[in-house]
Amino acid sequence: MEIKFKVWLEKDGEVLVGNGKVGLLKVIDELGSIQKAAERKGMSYRHAWGMIQKIEKRTGFKFVETQVGGKEGGSARLTPRGKEFLNQYETFRSGLDETIGRRFKAAFKK
Amino acid sequence: MEIKFKVWLEKDGEVLVGNGKVGLLKVIDELGSIQKAAERKGMSYRHAWGMIQKIEKRTGFKFVETQVGGKEGGSARLTPRGKEFLNQYETFRSGLDETIGRRFKAAFKK
Repeated sequence: MEIKFKVWLEKDGEVLVGNGKVGLLKVIDELGSIQKAAERKGMSYRHAWGMIQKIEKRTGFKFVETQVGGKEGGSARLTPRGKEFLNQYETFRSGLDETIGRRFKAAFKK
Repeated sequence: MEIKFKVWLEKDGEVLVGNGKVGLLKVIDELGSIQKAAERKGMSYRHAWGMIQKIEKRTGFKFVETQVGGKEGGSARLTPRGKEFLNQYETFRSGLDETIGRRFKAAFKK
């Protein structure tokens, strides 16, 4: 028997960000490209772009800055504010598995 | 911006119990009737019965004992083992909202 959980942020009843969007943003930060990040996540560029637009619309600030052109077909990076948000989310998220797992074991004496 | 989460137990990749089944079992315990508990939860008797069968099959033990007949149309109560499991789940679940909320506030300084 194991414990599972899902955690996400909402604003005005709409999902703002969960593991999906956070995962995508982290890979964009790492690879410097929406296209490459989408490939690694197994999604289309269009879908990745839609996710970015949603989170930007719902938070009210830019997460990703893009630069068009070059032989790599443009690059992307997180804005300082986007990076700060991601760091805050990571701070919140890290250790949560352990906390929940510990409570579970204590309650079920497993 | 607010934090939301969902937590559930799995066994061999199948959902064992989440807030839905736990909620139903608590009301059966309170009302002493599957029929009345199903009504309060806005579900059919058949659906409630299916949920009980699932959790019993997956955990491998009885949660609900029923007694047929009488003018009330039979009664139901939790088995001692079912009650113990429910208590363990409650112990695990209680305070989790607060714990997660506190981490969230600390990370986002809200």
